[in-house]
Amino acid sequence: MLPALDLARRVEAGDLSPAKVIELAAENIAKRESEVGAFAALALEHARKIAQDKALAGKPLRGLPFGLKDIFDTADMPTEYGSTIYAGHRPAADASLVSMIARAGGVAIGKTVTTEFAHLDPGKTRNPHNPAHTPGGSSSGSAAGVAAGFFAAATGSQTGGSVIRPASYCGVAGFKPSYRLLPTIGMKCVSWHLDTAGFFAAGVADVAFVTALASGRDLRVDGKAPSAPRIAILRDPPWPAANDDMNKAVETAAQAAEKAGAKLSEIRLPKILGDAYELHRVVQSYEAAQSLASEYDRHKVRLRTTTLEMIEMGLAISADEYDNARKVCHRARSGIYEIFADTDAILSPSAPGAAPHGLASTGTSTFNRLWTLMGTPCVSIPGLKDATGLPLGVQIIGPFGHDKETLEAALFVETALARRN
Amino acid sequence: MLPALDLARRVEAGDLSPAKVIELAAENIAKRESEVGAFAALALEHARKIAQDKALAGKPLRGLPFGLKDIFDTADMPTEYGSTIYAGHRPAADASLVSMIARAGGVAIGKTVTTEFAHLDPGKTRNPHNPAHTPGGSSSGSAAGVAAGFFAAATGSQTGGSVIRPASYCGVAGFKPSYRLLPTIGMKCVSWHLDTAGFFAAGVADVAFVTALASGRDLRVDGKAPSAPRIAILRDPPWPAANDDMNKAVETAAQAAEKAGAKLSEIRLPKILGDAYELHRVVQSYEAAQSLASEYDRHKVRLRTTTLEMIEMGLAISADEYDNARKVCHRARSGIYEIFADTDAILSPSAPGAAPHGLASTGTSTFNRLWTLMGTPCVSIPGLKDATGLPLGVQIIGPFGHDKETLEAALFVETALARRN
Repeated sequence: MLPALDLARRVEAGDLSPAKVIELAAENIAKRESEVGAFAALALEHARKIAQDKALAGKPLRGLPFGLKDIFDTADMPTEYGSTIYAGHRPAADASLVSMIARAGGVAIGKTVTTEFAHLDPGKTRNPHNPAHTPGGSSSGSAAGVAAGFFAAATGSQTGGSVIRPASYCGVAGFKPSYRLLPTIGMKCVSWHLDTAGFFAAGVADVAFVTALASGRDLRVDGKAPSAPRIAILRDPPWPAANDDMNKAVETAAQAAEKAGAKLSEIRLPKILGDAYELHRVVQSYEAAQSLASEYDRHKVRLRTTTLEMIEMGLAISADEYDNARKVCHRARSGIYEIFADTDAILSPSAPGAAPHGLASTGTSTFNRLWTLMGTPCVSIPGLKDATGLPLGVQIIGPFGHDKETLEAALFVETALARRN
Repeated sequence: MLPALDLARRVEAGDLSPAKVIELAAENIAKRESEVGAFAALALEHARKIAQDKALAGKPLRGLPFGLKDIFDTADMPTEYGSTIYAGHRPAADASLVSMIARAGGVAIGKTVTTEFAHLDPGKTRNPHNPAHTPGGSSSGSAAGVAAGFFAAATGSQTGGSVIRPASYCGVAGFKPSYRLLPTIGMKCVSWHLDTAGFFAAGVADVAFVTALASGRDLRVDGKAPSAPRIAILRDPPWPAANDDMNKAVETAAQAAEKAGAKLSEIRLPKILGDAYELHRVVQSYEAAQSLASEYDRHKVRLRTTTLEMIEMGLAISADEYDNARKVCHRARSGIYEIFADTDAILSPSAPGAAPHGLASTGTSTFNRLWTLMGTPCVSIPGLKDATGLPLGVQIIGPFGHDKETLEAALFVETALARRN
């Protein structure tokens, strides 16, 4: 991997040039891209040109190479949203987050593979830890590319579990901030109440660093050891249990955190949150039927199966059913406030287990979609593996708007895990 | 004007064909477009072709001609957002609302003039009631085009006062629904917490009709006389007073409504709403600096004065200042709930007065921006005029999510005004 903070410090110190960092990425790409397939479009020459800019090393992101999920519009690179409908499409403007990364001195080196419209139909990407396994989705290329050292950081988006799940499967840090902390303008929309932009990087402090500098927000957690958080373990959630390997990983993380000073407790979700969990599909599909109306009306035969199913499910949902789902979700947020009165963070699996075998499915978002719906910040912490060597991410969930504290709690757990041996 | 409900009924009854309705619009356009300048792009031939479709008369919107504000993406027509940066731009997809209008049987006959990026720098449109006066903005061409009979209805958007103000100035009904009732996907974004899609049509029942059918929501108010609402008049608002003509118009509307059975009261806004009013500019400009980041970074010299000022104001606002503004707005919504515990609707001027003389400014959104920020439904009711014959709109504001009741209250006032003589 290319650790963002370490590379940025070395560029700042003059030990590395932005151009040299691009070449480190290029070497890894040359070695493994044919196997991993992280890129929808590669723009190494464009990146090399930008990296010649003498001012770059003085900018906050120090010329770090970025991957951009191919649902973020780019004026300098094709943007296909994982759909044949948009083959060769070149938007007129950059997405807001793309502009903000460039302003801060990040260098885009390519567009990364997304499932079709960031939903479920997979692209070509394979898991760098075992190419017979899925990298997860929908931000497949961004997570796999960070894991393979193709770039120091990458943008992702989560409507169900599209940041946290692939981060877990690929063994990198994934950060889904609070709803709307990062702008989604110029990011292809599936569901406007769910779609949340996020980032991938090597570790928790790395992902906090890139999010902070791209957004101009006080989110960095490096440089100072975080204080011990109160961590709650979720018991009896309204979704199916994780597998034994994953449950063991969560226990390992909990014990390491406790040993390092964290205060552990157990919680159960108020019933209203179980109700909200079931309604994620209502909000997502009703809004997708409107967001993707033009694609459905003009290019229906070119939509893949699960996208089509989602739209047609949405078309069958009445405005009343949707409004009622939104009301339940609104009330459920009060249930979340109750939980976080007594705890700083929830510790949970990032996914049901390690990356499933096969490439036909990108896995399931059962451990993620409630938190996307609630708009709470989530971090997937890397560092654990199953018996076969596949990564297992554990997830820290914090209260809405407390993104920095959530990243600090995640860093605390990550550090405790690293020190446990 | 081309009254939407009346035309739709005549098409339904077989007395008119959709093709004939397009010709009524074409006649008005031929007569007055050179003077009014409502269109950014006219697509009459395209509309005539679509109107040949035999199935159209059976669809809910019966082939009614629509104008589309030129910030809504259209794959069949240019979309320039009122900016030279986008001269000749042709999006790859239709905005969601554009698809939904077409699905329901509305026929787009052109794109209508918007101020630059729906902000303040005016386009070419003149007020159909007096071409020396502004039509208002930012939805200038949509409001003026409905007034001039160029189409039966038109889309608009409101970030400050861009639906209600031009509706008032042009003497048509304007409806800004609750925040996010209509999808904004494919609508050029200035401020994601403010931008609200809306509609213009001849009268209140017409605008309710087109909104209902385009959105698939139960919002029609025709066919049944609305019951008498409890109406509150706003005293001492935190913005500058309206002029005498406008104050007289509001008194006239209040008296007519009372005579027809409405219960009148007076209210003052809780202080928190005054605080929120002042913070509209913080939310708008902070978000605009991100939404329009690509245009600013790539084409700064082609941005007009007020757009540039808004972006640069936004760049100077810190994330903390923005977050605090958002928190005040969140708390202010509770203040709104208090008000609507005892009243169904607030009656207020739609604008400080009739359309100002001159075309250099589109007027001010002082009477609108608090309600945009609060996400409450607003209707501008036509029917009153000042001594010079320029229209004066009065505004009905209802509680969030009570769009039908708000339209009913507006219809009640409109009907009472029509019957007062």
